[in-house]
Amino acid sequence: MEFEYDGPSMKTEVPGPRSKELTKQLGEIQNVGAINFFCNYEESRGNYLVDVDGNRMLDVYTQISSIPIGYNHPSLIKVMSNPNNMSAFVNRPALGIMPPENFPEKLAESLLSVAPSGMSRVQTMACGSCSNENAYKAMFIWYRVKHLLFQSNIFLNPGCPDFSILSFMGGFHGRTMGCLATTHSKAIHKLDVPSFDWPIAPFPKLKYPLEEFTRENAQEEARCLEEVEDLIVQWRQKGRPVAGIVIEPIQAEGGDNHATPDFFKKLRNIAHKHGSAFHVDEVQTGGGATGKFWAHEHWGMDDPADIVSFSKKMLTGGFYHKDELQAYRIFNTWMGDPSKNLFLAEVLNVIRRENLLEEVTRSGKTLLQGLYQLQDQYPNLLSSARGQGTFCAIDIRDDATRNSILLKARDKGVLLGGCGDRSIRFRPALVFKEYHVHMFLNVFSDVLAEHN
Amino acid sequence: MEFEYDGPSMKTEVPGPRSKELTKQLGEIQNVGAINFFCNYEESRGNYLVDVDGNRMLDVYTQISSIPIGYNHPSLIKVMSNPNNMSAFVNRPALGIMPPENFPEKLAESLLSVAPSGMSRVQTMACGSCSNENAYKAMFIWYRVKHLLFQSNIFLNPGCPDFSILSFMGGFHGRTMGCLATTHSKAIHKLDVPSFDWPIAPFPKLKYPLEEFTRENAQEEARCLEEVEDLIVQWRQKGRPVAGIVIEPIQAEGGDNHATPDFFKKLRNIAHKHGSAFHVDEVQTGGGATGKFWAHEHWGMDDPADIVSFSKKMLTGGFYHKDELQAYRIFNTWMGDPSKNLFLAEVLNVIRRENLLEEVTRSGKTLLQGLYQLQDQYPNLLSSARGQGTFCAIDIRDDATRNSILLKARDKGVLLGGCGDRSIRFRPALVFKEYHVHMFLNVFSDVLAEHN
Repeated sequence: MEFEYDGPSMKTEVPGPRSKELTKQLGEIQNVGAINFFCNYEESRGNYLVDVDGNRMLDVYTQISSIPIGYNHPSLIKVMSNPNNMSAFVNRPALGIMPPENFPEKLAESLLSVAPSGMSRVQTMACGSCSNENAYKAMFIWYRVKHLLFQSNIFLNPGCPDFSILSFMGGFHGRTMGCLATTHSKAIHKLDVPSFDWPIAPFPKLKYPLEEFTRENAQEEARCLEEVEDLIVQWRQKGRPVAGIVIEPIQAEGGDNHATPDFFKKLRNIAHKHGSAFHVDEVQTGGGATGKFWAHEHWGMDDPADIVSFSKKMLTGGFYHKDELQAYRIFNTWMGDPSKNLFLAEVLNVIRRENLLEEVTRSGKTLLQGLYQLQDQYPNLLSSARGQGTFCAIDIRDDATRNSILLKARDKGVLLGGCGDRSIRFRPALVFKEYHVHMFLNVFSDVLAEHN
Repeated sequence: MEFEYDGPSMKTEVPGPRSKELTKQLGEIQNVGAINFFCNYEESRGNYLVDVDGNRMLDVYTQISSIPIGYNHPSLIKVMSNPNNMSAFVNRPALGIMPPENFPEKLAESLLSVAPSGMSRVQTMACGSCSNENAYKAMFIWYRVKHLLFQSNIFLNPGCPDFSILSFMGGFHGRTMGCLATTHSKAIHKLDVPSFDWPIAPFPKLKYPLEEFTRENAQEEARCLEEVEDLIVQWRQKGRPVAGIVIEPIQAEGGDNHATPDFFKKLRNIAHKHGSAFHVDEVQTGGGATGKFWAHEHWGMDDPADIVSFSKKMLTGGFYHKDELQAYRIFNTWMGDPSKNLFLAEVLNVIRRENLLEEVTRSGKTLLQGLYQLQDQYPNLLSSARGQGTFCAIDIRDDATRNSILLKARDKGVLLGGCGDRSIRFRPALVFKEYHVHMFLNVFSDVLAEHN
């Protein structure tokens, strides 16, 4: 990666004066409550994000986990400079009625080439929320058709039925109104917005490392699974049958909460048993960061899901689904953006050519090992280091300390993100190599020493 | 427009053999129930869409009204070829936390330069549905804050309240779950999907031309407005107060239903009186096709709306809003796509440089005049010609005849779309000139002669 910088370089505090000026400017136009700083994307390279004050940071957050192979990757620049691709950017089609000639071919090259096990169909969408909204609709439509066949007496009246989606405490699936009814990572997300009466199951609260607490964890998972079945029965009795179950393989916004493959296998079986669709939301976990392309591949199942949604690192939103969940009524004007498929096809080429899943596995091991060591060193400060690939997290003593660590790390040129009540999540790009891990661990270690 | 073709040119039936082959291919991946044909966007120019079988059609539908200045406009190609713009395409940021340096400037150049009266704030979103979903959320949050001040007794419990959005029969606002609860253009859109108990008011069914039926139309509008007030009171009594009213200036998907400026003024006053926000959905009407940049400008009001949403021809989704409707909690990962703002800024330059709003007004007059003449000529076939600018429509005797006319016109090289039960809608790009109108009218006239 000769095009990358050789380390962080900090010139000002962050946000610096130029960022502050621009934030004030933008504040005249939009709410800027969440703005961190402004970026110079032209100068950013690989794992390094450069801000408008000339600060260069090692990026272990990557735009909320949505930059797959680093900034300004030369292969992506090439996609842009190829005159054959021009028209995909300039003429955005209504994909559902008049797709471009190369659309099937580009879908095959990009999304289908990494389709999850058992799935050969995919629908693109413009963003993660739309992906989940439409996946829910596909499950509702599928559920009615399926159950109409067997229980025609209670489904005779066409219209808007009281079907429900079962979701989990701590889950995050987006913020549009259907998605929001299944999002429970922070109360503030849902405040003031009408919602549906849908069941919410507990997500297992496990002890880490998982392999040291197998017995307790198995008990906790059994408790949650029992509750899931109870809720499905309750909601059926209420007249709001559970058409689908939605879950993240690792609850990301909610605090990087893991569960074991055994939990997911049993949950999948419960969905089968009760005739509900099983929707795995890979918006944040998908795209390679766990060391497999899809996090749910770690479960080792042949038939892991009925629907798998994605966005972020995939550059386009959308969802894969089984044949039986296709629906003519999943439709909108754009249905995605074919220019994003061009980039994704090239990202996948880079992942294969540079063996990035192996790279992630290697970097991830080093990262988790380093986190374990720091946790041993600072037992009052750190706990529950956990992760798959580079998709790692660690808990900090309390919220205030966590936030202080995030800011101090940034001052030293390392960009991190929080999640849950008091976790730090690590979300580097797939090009984050072992030497980047060491660079990060050195800075992190210094910051922790200041907080002990 | 030297870069354009000089007329339609048909080589095969549509869809031709290559389109059929590709549809079969895509059918292995997606539902293709809505596919018309596949396009060669590289060869498409200006008002002419070229398909993969070499058929060149005059496009009066423009990807469901979403191509502002025709295909492959040289100015948009230039945006792509400018190396300074490269990084906006290659590094998609999380706009809500780390925007690019030129983001405020590009917003000012693009969206703010055409902001509706009374609005200086704008939030971008990835598509039309997300724009409306988030506009609804902004209204809910605003409503609670506003009413908390005055009626704190009934709003003490934070959580998900039973607020509602009042919408209109025949309205279309998107297909995600919040939007879908306000969409009533076709029953099939809503089938099988859970919805909210929100009030739905009648939209005036007017007689055209409006100026010939002022008395009847005024009565019909008064009836609808009365019903709106009744519903607002009823829903308040139900404990589901109306936080916002959403309406299109011209109901597009629902059949190009118009109402008079007087209706909208009175509706706006009702919103004021009852403390509900007023949301004008300009997703299809916005961007210049009515001869003004926003269709609601035809109402001639200083304070027409609290929220105006857009997408399609604007190339980016989003919504303008008054200061008091800003909300920190309107957030997602991408919050739009800054590369689309670059294209929009250039589209607006072209609109100004080429006086396209005047062009649209001129072409629209010729188009409507032509439709009136055809309607006089074929009174048993055509009725209710109507329109603003080139945003025109006409009713056909019945659904089957409408669909036959659409296909026959396509065979002769003119691409049209239907809307409502039996209307044809005209949605050319802003570069549709008077000679294109004449070309269209000639073909249309031939097709009508075959159906008389």
